[in-house]
Amino acid sequence: MKKLFCLVALLAAAVASLSAQGSRVVADSIDSRVLGVTKNFTVYLPAGYEDSGRDYPILYLLHGAWGDHTDWTRSGNAKNIADELYASGFGIPAIIVMPDASGEKPDKTGFRMGYFDKEGWPYETHFFEEFIPYVEGKYRVRAEKKYRAIAGLSMGGGGSMVYALHHPEMFGSCCPLSGLLGTRPVAVAIDDDFTENIGRNDPQDILRNATDGQLDSFRTVRWYIDCGDDDFLAHFNVQVFLLMKEKQVPLQFRMRDGGHTWEYWQSALPSVLQFISIGFGE
Amino acid sequence: MKKLFCLVALLAAAVASLSAQGSRVVADSIDSRVLGVTKNFTVYLPAGYEDSGRDYPILYLLHGAWGDHTDWTRSGNAKNIADELYASGFGIPAIIVMPDASGEKPDKTGFRMGYFDKEGWPYETHFFEEFIPYVEGKYRVRAEKKYRAIAGLSMGGGGSMVYALHHPEMFGSCCPLSGLLGTRPVAVAIDDDFTENIGRNDPQDILRNATDGQLDSFRTVRWYIDCGDDDFLAHFNVQVFLLMKEKQVPLQFRMRDGGHTWEYWQSALPSVLQFISIGFGE
Amino acid sequence: MKKLFCLVALLAAAVASLSAQGSRVVADSIDSRVLGVTKNFTVYLPAGYEDSGRDYPILYLLHGAWGDHTDWTRSGNAKNIADELYASGFGIPAIIVMPDASGEKPDKTGFRMGYFDKEGWPYETHFFEEFIPYVEGKYRVRAEKKYRAIAGLSMGGGGSMVYALHHPEMFGSCCPLSGLLGTRPVAVAIDDDFTENIGRNDPQDILRNATDGQLDSFRTVRWYIDCGDDDFLAHFNVQVFLLMKEKQVPLQFRMRDGGHTWEYWQSALPSVLQFISIGFGE
Amino acid sequence: MKKLFCLVALLAAAVASLSAQGSRVVADSIDSRVLGVTKNFTVYLPAGYEDSGRDYPILYLLHGAWGDHTDWTRSGNAKNIADELYASGFGIPAIIVMPDASGEKPDKTGFRMGYFDKEGWPYETHFFEEFIPYVEGKYRVRAEKKYRAIAGLSMGGGGSMVYALHHPEMFGSCCPLSGLLGTRPVAVAIDDDFTENIGRNDPQDILRNATDGQLDSFRTVRWYIDCGDDDFLAHFNVQVFLLMKEKQVPLQFRMRDGGHTWEYWQSALPSVLQFISIGFGE
Repeated sequence: MKKLFCLVALLAAAVASLSAQGSRVVADSIDSRVLGVTKNFTVYLPAGYEDSGRDYPILYLLHGAWGDHTDWTRSGNAKNIADELYASGFGIPAIIVMPDASGEKPDKTGFRMGYFDKEGWPYETHFFEEFIPYVEGKYRVRAEKKYRAIAGLSMGGGGSMVYALHHPEMFGSCCPLSGLLGTRPVAVAIDDDFTENIGRNDPQDILRNATDGQLDSFRTVRWYIDCGDDDFLAHFNVQVFLLMKEKQVPLQFRMRDGGHTWEYWQSALPSVLQFISIGFGE
Repeated sequence: MKKLFCLVALLAAAVASLSAQGSRVVADSIDSRVLGVTKNFTVYLPAGYEDSGRDYPILYLLHGAWGDHTDWTRSGNAKNIADELYASGFGIPAIIVMPDASGEKPDKTGFRMGYFDKEGWPYETHFFEEFIPYVEGKYRVRAEKKYRAIAGLSMGGGGSMVYALHHPEMFGSCCPLSGLLGTRPVAVAIDDDFTENIGRNDPQDILRNATDGQLDSFRTVRWYIDCGDDDFLAHFNVQVFLLMKEKQVPLQFRMRDGGHTWEYWQSALPSVLQFISIGFGE
Repeated sequence: MKKLFCLVALLAAAVASLSAQGSRVVADSIDSRVLGVTKNFTVYLPAGYEDSGRDYPILYLLHGAWGDHTDWTRSGNAKNIADELYASGFGIPAIIVMPDASGEKPDKTGFRMGYFDKEGWPYETHFFEEFIPYVEGKYRVRAEKKYRAIAGLSMGGGGSMVYALHHPEMFGSCCPLSGLLGTRPVAVAIDDDFTENIGRNDPQDILRNATDGQLDSFRTVRWYIDCGDDDFLAHFNVQVFLLMKEKQVPLQFRMRDGGHTWEYWQSALPSVLQFISIGFGE
Repeated sequence: MKKLFCLVALLAAAVASLSAQGSRVVADSIDSRVLGVTKNFTVYLPAGYEDSGRDYPILYLLHGAWGDHTDWTRSGNAKNIADELYASGFGIPAIIVMPDASGEKPDKTGFRMGYFDKEGWPYETHFFEEFIPYVEGKYRVRAEKKYRAIAGLSMGGGGSMVYALHHPEMFGSCCPLSGLLGTRPVAVAIDDDFTENIGRNDPQDILRNATDGQLDSFRTVRWYIDCGDDDFLAHFNVQVFLLMKEKQVPLQFRMRDGGHTWEYWQSALPSVLQFISIGFGE
């Protein structure tokens, strides 16, 4: 029985690869003076990045507790999802940077886990003073508020929201997914230190205590908050929804079916990419 | 210029009408002894009702304030939406009954508006003691909890929820849309009487004060609550969401983009019909 | 019984109107030298148009047979749909222009119906030589291919496709909905003249007979074709899909549930607005 | 630093596991007399199967070329998708059986790959005479046409369609996804034998050559066909769509964005489960 060359399937594969031509996931790292260690990060470069010569919008996409900078591309299927959305003409291609805020323990928790400054581990300082400048110097990024978005899931949803509240002048859009957006009662009591650190960076406190000027600056960020109706963090998300309404900070809020799962975040990512695209393009 | 007979278009129209064959919207009425007046109502009979000879599940679909029994088919496009969903194979055809809870004023508000009993206008009594028996006697209805659903928008969202809380033994599924699901602070202060009447029938009070036995009975209802993120009643809906979670009464909760508009309710109706279909078919 | 002032509802209405602030539907007209008559058209000006002082992208949105320039805002709910999409942050606000290609008969058919040139009624010439220049001179339009899109339903789906094939240098995106995208066998035999005129402007013929250079120019247009699986024009749409694949002209193609109905076109419009927005913003 | 017990997260996990309580994926096998070998298969038993004591509807879910009975639960995420859909109240829980039609080679192709009978490997005979009876005897299945559905992807899409055409009296619903629904020109020329075998079981031939009586029997099956607009098998799917329209065999047809990928099939599965649920429940 003679084998035929599987022409059509090969052709199809070729077409498929073309549609994602040039999209690459790059493992990169930064020697952090602030933290005293080398931190890894992952970069998604959209199709055509190498040849286009032009600058791109950027999305910082944060992982959750027990995770690291490889989560979104491994469990989150971020490369395929972004490739497909961009190929379909429903999103403006962006560089997607996935930083590492994991801890030092084998399960990726520990003292160093988290997005906020603490005594001896000033992660947020590192993020704004070292990481963003490094990334936006190395890659061809349109380094302006309008073209910079931030999103994240769970602990990274909280991180993205607090970062955008601390630096509304930096981010055009912010999209917390299933975000750890509060601390009372404690939601994820990994250890005292984590709880305390999160507690000092409660987005609801920031919103509640904001001056009129701060509220005005929050209104310059495009907010998109999405959380599943079965999520154990759902209450924090609806609290933030009510609080932002009360403070008259416009936001998009979605509650879809689902829990604190990768299925939810995978199905959320296309909408995030669409939403931030409109911010880039307006 | 000779005219041709427009064959294909006619054929298409014929096919379209076939796919909705027999679906009818009927204007009906009931002489209410309880209320001392004749009340109108609208009935959607699914395609094939006349010929099938069999009994059907039933959905009571309630209108909002300033509305009446003709709203859902006029502004809500309910006939076309149901026809299309049933034709697509994504819903189990049901009889849809749209009652009238409008008031006596030209703008359809007034003393008689609303779904609850008040001195001199015992509408809820009428609904359960007269209306349901009349409808389910006249039309071929599978008159069991499993095959009976209730849904409604705004004031009718509140009505549907309170009816299902008052009579969990009657309804398999309950789907409040953009529901007036609370009263503090008052949301729609049409007049003192309305406010007071709604206040005596606050679903949050019912949930908060429920005995364990009542909570158990609430758990026999399939709940689907949907409200837009721009809706001025959104806070009531998220309050009910949190309260049902706290009371461990399982529910589906959705918050999509939109306000207190017919666009929202039209886009909600297919999901309502799908959700109640699974209840009918399980 | 004292009436209270309905504060909250008013507030909600105010907020709702704010979110759509400035969006206006304008009735306009042009004295056509080419056609020798005055033609009406409808213009949607997005929220903030008056005050912004800036130029906007533009969408030409074409009606179907038996229709006119008022269809999309009346039956198509285009104003509310555009308002809501733009308010949600999922679309880049555009001016939407709805021209009139209706005929002279009471049912809006007749010799003058249609988007193509015929002896004594050179509509397409009028469209490109008079109408577009007039509109883009009068309103603040970013008058470039990238910022110009065209879409339409049924006869207007065919019109939009043929216009973009005749003038690929003019349109960044083209979105035919339930389009009359072929003529063999005849689909809508209104009269001999219509059939013949459509037949001379068959998009499949244009694609089939295109030179390599023309095909290249077709590839500079972003195509989004959407047709219901119950539509009597579905076969034309899948024929065009196969033909564009064969000719390697990339396109987005969608077949959703539904027929040749306003429900279909209303549910299609948000995706059209999202798709063309990415073209505007890239 | 004292560690706290991570109460809330544990609680959430417990709740999550409850919502999927009892859902199990079972590895099973059958000693085939017809094929002379032991064939493995995978079974999804919905939550509560063990305790309910009642019979369930059944879905046969077929894999594609280069795959086997473990594909849908591994790459297709079928367990989580089914769990979530059923928990949300949008589907009637069914037993899902995933058979093995892989070949004998390391890459799972080879002489034995495929769903059809061939000299020396009568797989279809095995499927209908041994496999279905065995499965429906061993598990608590409602063994009637109404409660039996079949679906599959790619080669399994073709398999599911041909099985339902060969045995319309057996299946209430049939849902080919990205199906290999034709053979001219050959789509996947793995080897001569495969091509020839598929060619003898071309669903388009079956439809084209069907008697009126056969066509009538095809109309007793609820058809849902879904294929991505970037799929290299898209042309076969639209051909079948046109052919079934021509033969007046009603079907649902969807063409969404995407290619021949697990992302597509994962996003298709919820609709398949919803569609077959209505068939079970009608």
